Amino acid sequence: MSQAVLNPLLITEAVRAALIEDLGRAGDITTLATIPAGKRASAVIAARKSGIVAGLPFARETFRQYDPSVRFEAAMSDGDRLEPGAIVARIEGEARSVLSAERVALNFMGRLSGIATLAAAYVAKAAGTKAMIVDTRKTTPGLRAFEKYAVRCGGAGNHRYGLDDAILIKDNHVAVAGGIRPALQAAKRQAGNFVKIEIEVDTLAQLEEVLAEGADIVMLDNMSVADLTRGVAMVGGRMKVEASGGITLDTVAAIAATGVDMISVGALTHSASVLDLGLDIEIA
Amino acid sequence: MSQAVLNPLLITEAVRAALIEDLGRAGDITTLATIPAGKRASAVIAARKSGIVAGLPFARETFRQYDPSVRFEAAMSDGDRLEPGAIVARIEGEARSVLSAERVALNFMGRLSGIATLAAAYVAKAAGTKAMIVDTRKTTPGLRAFEKYAVRCGGAGNHRYGLDDAILIKDNHVAVAGGIRPALQAAKRQAGNFVKIEIEVDTLAQLEEVLAEGADIVMLDNMSVADLTRGVAMVGGRMKVEASGGITLDTVAAIAATGVDMISVGALTHSASVLDLGLDIEIA
Amino acid sequence: MSQAVLNPLLITEAVRAALIEDLGRAGDITTLATIPAGKRASAVIAARKSGIVAGLPFARETFRQYDPSVRFEAAMSDGDRLEPGAIVARIEGEARSVLSAERVALNFMGRLSGIATLAAAYVAKAAGTKAMIVDTRKTTPGLRAFEKYAVRCGGAGNHRYGLDDAILIKDNHVAVAGGIRPALQAAKRQAGNFVKIEIEVDTLAQLEEVLAEGADIVMLDNMSVADLTRGVAMVGGRMKVEASGGITLDTVAAIAATGVDMISVGALTHSASVLDLGLDIEIA
Amino acid sequence: MSQAVLNPLLITEAVRAALIEDLGRAGDITTLATIPAGKRASAVIAARKSGIVAGLPFARETFRQYDPSVRFEAAMSDGDRLEPGAIVARIEGEARSVLSAERVALNFMGRLSGIATLAAAYVAKAAGTKAMIVDTRKTTPGLRAFEKYAVRCGGAGNHRYGLDDAILIKDNHVAVAGGIRPALQAAKRQAGNFVKIEIEVDTLAQLEEVLAEGADIVMLDNMSVADLTRGVAMVGGRMKVEASGGITLDTVAAIAATGVDMISVGALTHSASVLDLGLDIEIA
Amino acid sequence: MSQAVLNPLLITEAVRAALIEDLGRAGDITTLATIPAGKRASAVIAARKSGIVAGLPFARETFRQYDPSVRFEAAMSDGDRLEPGAIVARIEGEARSVLSAERVALNFMGRLSGIATLAAAYVAKAAGTKAMIVDTRKTTPGLRAFEKYAVRCGGAGNHRYGLDDAILIKDNHVAVAGGIRPALQAAKRQAGNFVKIEIEVDTLAQLEEVLAEGADIVMLDNMSVADLTRGVAMVGGRMKVEASGGITLDTVAAIAATGVDMISVGALTHSASVLDLGLDIEIA
Amino acid sequence: MSQAVLNPLLITEAVRAALIEDLGRAGDITTLATIPAGKRASAVIAARKSGIVAGLPFARETFRQYDPSVRFEAAMSDGDRLEPGAIVARIEGEARSVLSAERVALNFMGRLSGIATLAAAYVAKAAGTKAMIVDTRKTTPGLRAFEKYAVRCGGAGNHRYGLDDAILIKDNHVAVAGGIRPALQAAKRQAGNFVKIEIEVDTLAQLEEVLAEGADIVMLDNMSVADLTRGVAMVGGRMKVEASGGITLDTVAAIAATGVDMISVGALTHSASVLDLGLDIEIA
Repeated sequence: MSQAVLNPLLITEAVRAALIEDLGRAGDITTLATIPAGKRASAVIAARKSGIVAGLPFARETFRQYDPSVRFEAAMSDGDRLEPGAIVARIEGEARSVLSAERVALNFMGRLSGIATLAAAYVAKAAGTKAMIVDTRKTTPGLRAFEKYAVRCGGAGNHRYGLDDAILIKDNHVAVAGGIRPALQAAKRQAGNFVKIEIEVDTLAQLEEVLAEGADIVMLDNMSVADLTRGVAMVGGRMKVEASGGITLDTVAAIAATGVDMISVGALTHSASVLDLGLDIEIA
Repeated sequence: MSQAVLNPLLITEAVRAALIEDLGRAGDITTLATIPAGKRASAVIAARKSGIVAGLPFARETFRQYDPSVRFEAAMSDGDRLEPGAIVARIEGEARSVLSAERVALNFMGRLSGIATLAAAYVAKAAGTKAMIVDTRKTTPGLRAFEKYAVRCGGAGNHRYGLDDAILIKDNHVAVAGGIRPALQAAKRQAGNFVKIEIEVDTLAQLEEVLAEGADIVMLDNMSVADLTRGVAMVGGRMKVEASGGITLDTVAAIAATGVDMISVGALTHSASVLDLGLDIEIA
Repeated sequence: MSQAVLNPLLITEAVRAALIEDLGRAGDITTLATIPAGKRASAVIAARKSGIVAGLPFARETFRQYDPSVRFEAAMSDGDRLEPGAIVARIEGEARSVLSAERVALNFMGRLSGIATLAAAYVAKAAGTKAMIVDTRKTTPGLRAFEKYAVRCGGAGNHRYGLDDAILIKDNHVAVAGGIRPALQAAKRQAGNFVKIEIEVDTLAQLEEVLAEGADIVMLDNMSVADLTRGVAMVGGRMKVEASGGITLDTVAAIAATGVDMISVGALTHSASVLDLGLDIEIA
Repeated sequence: MSQAVLNPLLITEAVRAALIEDLGRAGDITTLATIPAGKRASAVIAARKSGIVAGLPFARETFRQYDPSVRFEAAMSDGDRLEPGAIVARIEGEARSVLSAERVALNFMGRLSGIATLAAAYVAKAAGTKAMIVDTRKTTPGLRAFEKYAVRCGGAGNHRYGLDDAILIKDNHVAVAGGIRPALQAAKRQAGNFVKIEIEVDTLAQLEEVLAEGADIVMLDNMSVADLTRGVAMVGGRMKVEASGGITLDTVAAIAATGVDMISVGALTHSASVLDLGLDIEIA
Repeated sequence: MSQAVLNPLLITEAVRAALIEDLGRAGDITTLATIPAGKRASAVIAARKSGIVAGLPFARETFRQYDPSVRFEAAMSDGDRLEPGAIVARIEGEARSVLSAERVALNFMGRLSGIATLAAAYVAKAAGTKAMIVDTRKTTPGLRAFEKYAVRCGGAGNHRYGLDDAILIKDNHVAVAGGIRPALQAAKRQAGNFVKIEIEVDTLAQLEEVLAEGADIVMLDNMSVADLTRGVAMVGGRMKVEASGGITLDTVAAIAATGVDMISVGALTHSASVLDLGLDIEIA
Repeated sequence: MSQAVLNPLLITEAVRAALIEDLGRAGDITTLATIPAGKRASAVIAARKSGIVAGLPFARETFRQYDPSVRFEAAMSDGDRLEPGAIVARIEGEARSVLSAERVALNFMGRLSGIATLAAAYVAKAAGTKAMIVDTRKTTPGLRAFEKYAVRCGGAGNHRYGLDDAILIKDNHVAVAGGIRPALQAAKRQAGNFVKIEIEVDTLAQLEEVLAEGADIVMLDNMSVADLTRGVAMVGGRMKVEASGGITLDTVAAIAATGVDMISVGALTHSASVLDLGLDIEIA
């Protein structure tokens, strides 16, 4: 299984922005008023629901930036499965620091774990087929690298990171370029040797054209299970096949069974619910 | 009805970051390869589902930053209700620019409209009561001001923006401070005249203590409808009453009917699905 | 007494910017030329005048960022009173580092201590009354959170942090809104439950209108001591009363004696002189 | 007379930061509630006190960033003298924009004009002598370039901008280097041809040593008028002479009369009061 | 031929940083002193040497940011060939603005044109073969996207942009992974469908292993022309072949003639000389 | 000899940007796939060619930011001479970290060492004369402070850092100001006491005018060795003399022998090749 990947420098920046956002101008005025300096606390981050954990490096970095003297020990690793009540991490330090940094840490972990959990649900439905579940560019602005990391934590894979790292020719591009062949030819002139070329088709007739011209990946958009099955047969392994378009947890198993190589699901990142995690504190 | 509010400078920064994120290092290599310079396009942003629109200023700013010569005309305003097929905005300019900026614009609008739509659904359930639906600090790191704006677009209200702009004394604070009265007294010494003080209670016995000491708002956490009704009666208008804790679209109406002033719902921001909006293009 | 509050992440950013500003492109070329590497120095930050100290966390962070091996020990805490000659902090480390970071550390401390000192002077004049001295938004661009922190160190309180965290209806707002009552009604529709509403009045007739409509705070602007006394009586505790407008160290005692709850003084942040602090070095 | 100088790109950055600071997360909630969209206003920035204006480019940029459709016409130029009531600039546009951006514009102008005004007062006291009044590095962290610009607007001159653009050997450097001559020799090895070398002396005996070794500028620190006069005679035009140390508006004239070339005054930037400027609005 | 590609938002940021760097704190004090405001100038950017132009959008943006009223008209496009004396762009506006922004504009253009020119020299040597000249990650820190754009302007192609957008298994990776096959197998598990896999080999024996396991690209490192020829034959079109290692203008033609698909040349970005461009001004 | 100087805070920022640039969104996917966590490695940075080392603090900071647990020990200091095979630094830590940070560290060191090496070559040619080799403003955008530091490491000196820290009157300034004397007079009014004034002349007749009016430095631009010799004699030590214009390693010795004080060479920063340094790894 592939590992989840992420540029660690990006975590530092994102946590800093989130702490500044939550603490605002005056900091945590409630904690400052009611918790005396020097009071110690220990706490655990625990699961309220089952799912897949993601975001532990963000929680660690949150406490580290707010107060380097807080001890943070992960009890699990990103990608691990959680049952309700499972302890994810243990935290020990100044009570003020633990309480003030709690929400930022949980906001990162809840959101990323929610995505990982939804991704894992799709992956489970496709089990036993060769179909890899992948994400899309329908991500939260500014958080794409993190959300795609969470998708990997859930056992799924990543589609393009951005407009610059693969060519994906959509219907509008085809329309302007004057057809599938000229579009593919233009793409090949541009692509160089390190960029893959994918093209979207809506019909099996278009798929014929793609097969004649060649590409790395063909996306069969919004096709019936029957057409997907036929499409996979037509391709015959000459390129990768991606199914796309409105795929849900109800429909994904049948689509996976058609033999496609990838199924892209926008919902992984645009419509995941948060995973319910809480911080349970013991004041020393 | 209150208006949605937002520091407009923050939009500029967020859109810039999102465009850099999506365009990456080399920009939109597909469009550059397949769409000739000088080709014009007109397009509409249209609703695929019903809901509440939010995020039009983000879409406008996205096209403006990518290419100031693109014309963007909003056909609606944030907070308006959408039916499937409704046209939200019209766009005209270089086809390359329209296609390259599309996803960033839609990512902002889809996410914010999804939150506005969910907020409006809660508001509708509470109609006819005095209960205001409000959000929480369970927001996406870095996007809190925008998500709270979207909550307002949906007709709901905002709870605290951060740890610095209101005092909210939770159970852990009470425990360390040695009880409700010392916690409230400490908070009052800290608060000054511009900051409201809210305190969370889990029992009606605690509520008694709060009433004896005084506060601006009391949060009744995870109480039954019966206890909420009793609590509201006990308060008798002396302070605002907030209901909180695991409230869903199924339970919100009954809770609103208890007479509470506010109902806080974390799901508004942490678990809203995107609203499905698309960009339909016509190449000239 | 309330504690001074501040988002600690903001200190990090401000110190970094100040060090980059002072060191410029080539760093401290004088020290590099004349002080050999490896030479040690110990030093104290000492008061040349009496006043209130503020800004110790900035000085600590300045030395830490420039050279983490420098030892910084505060001998006092922010908010403490200083007499001339008092030692505020002790510093030990590379002589080059101590000398190169000195000015940035002192610039922060001198300015913030100056504000705290002036605030304390106003507070002393109002002693024995219930009037709290508060600041305004007339702050140095980019340093507001720090200057408001210094005001707290001096024993005074904070008015609004920005345009977003309380409603303050001024004469121009009233004029456009068509009078005090429509302005207040509009504000209440906007405010939600976490934002306080204040309104400025110039006459006691306007005060009547405010009392009829209700608000959290009324600001009596530029009124005589006689009118302030009458105003306080009219309000009778139904809302907080703030006196404002050209108040000086000469006039503040009489105003405080009228029974107002708050007195706002722009001079705290816009016209405080620096407190004279120096760094006295011993080269080992 | 020399012109005031400033990197214009820095204004853009500072204004953006100040607007984000003042508008916070939710923007100007008062204006939004009480001023209807589309309402127009015209306004003037007018002087309440006499002084020297500085900061007009900051005010222009503030309104431009907040709302590019606002018209801003300067009626004066930075460096001009103001009498009470003088109109500094005229502004016309959306009433909401004019009101929301007002405070940031005035905060820049009031502070910079205050510095220019104080600088001009010192310059006037030194009139008829060859002494140039100059500033120091005792500036507000993050605003040094702007404060030094304001000093120039007031007709005074600038000392070093930072630690990197001139060598200034102080007593501690001399102590470690083992005396004035080795310190100057070390500085000359380091300085190259584009950096001037200044050295501080406390006694006329030290001055002898400086004259023997050579430097561009000598600073006579905390000397009596009699010693300054003697020192100027000893130097005899071979290098520039700067007087420094606790100089006030009361003492500056006598010091200027000693024949020194420069008098450095920390108070110009560390203890100037704001110049009282106001925005007077007419709602259309 | 492929087009050069670049995220345009990155140009804005880089130009802003470069202008701040060159103008420093006080701006262009020479021009301010010697050129009166209002004086107009027209100028051309002209080639002193022959080469390939790259960086025109940077020059345009430099003048636009410094003074939006300056008119900039490109007379050529990036990628065009220049002879000495050729006019690249015409500029007209305030003389002060033209002179103050000149160096930043030329620094971008000279450097990028230098890279484009060197790239074109390599491309010319490989003409008539199928070998594409490509760059490496040996780029100037912070400028990689721009330097890779310049490589494209010169008619060459781009290798990886960073560590994240293709897998390139080098000798150290092979050593730790326990051989070529386990390394390739690990890479395939990680890569997903959008990332290409390349592996470096030093011997033809290693190439055999790669051919047995499969990859997208094989890099033949530091091989003789004879071995490269043999290697190409062994591969037989089953994967792309890249030649790498110390290739110069003297050796590239022979290497290209071996039939490799790509030749990577670090010198394109790490050792290109600037192309000599000048700004010739006429003051009106 | 003077020491190389640099604001250390700038290194932190530059290294962070470079690591984010190279690691991109997903980080080092090759190393993650092929190198197991926990595997240790030791490595050396070694010279492949002879030259002058520069940039060690950048390499140290690169490994520190990527993984604070990596040990980095410099075996040399910036400015030291290297022979092929010389070990510059030793590194020990997680194999993943060493491999992932390698390229960024080498890119900084290679570029800066290349500049230092070229500077040293010019310095060697001028040995035995009083001429100091200096750089220009023809630097890489964003890296000027670092490149000027590298020039110092090579034993040469720095000309202006930017437009703000010295006055350099060029031919265009002279033309508009109406001649050399009015230009110099305008400059003196502007300059204050901390800024040096240099003026460019193309003829010995112009030099006469400069000598009559006075300046700190005169630049003799593009003059023959004969004219330079005459010019130096005319100046007779009354000001510094700089030779400038197309000076190469072939011509610099003769120019230095004319008696000029400085020789400015744009090539030091705009056309230096990288110095070839490599990281040799041993996996534990």
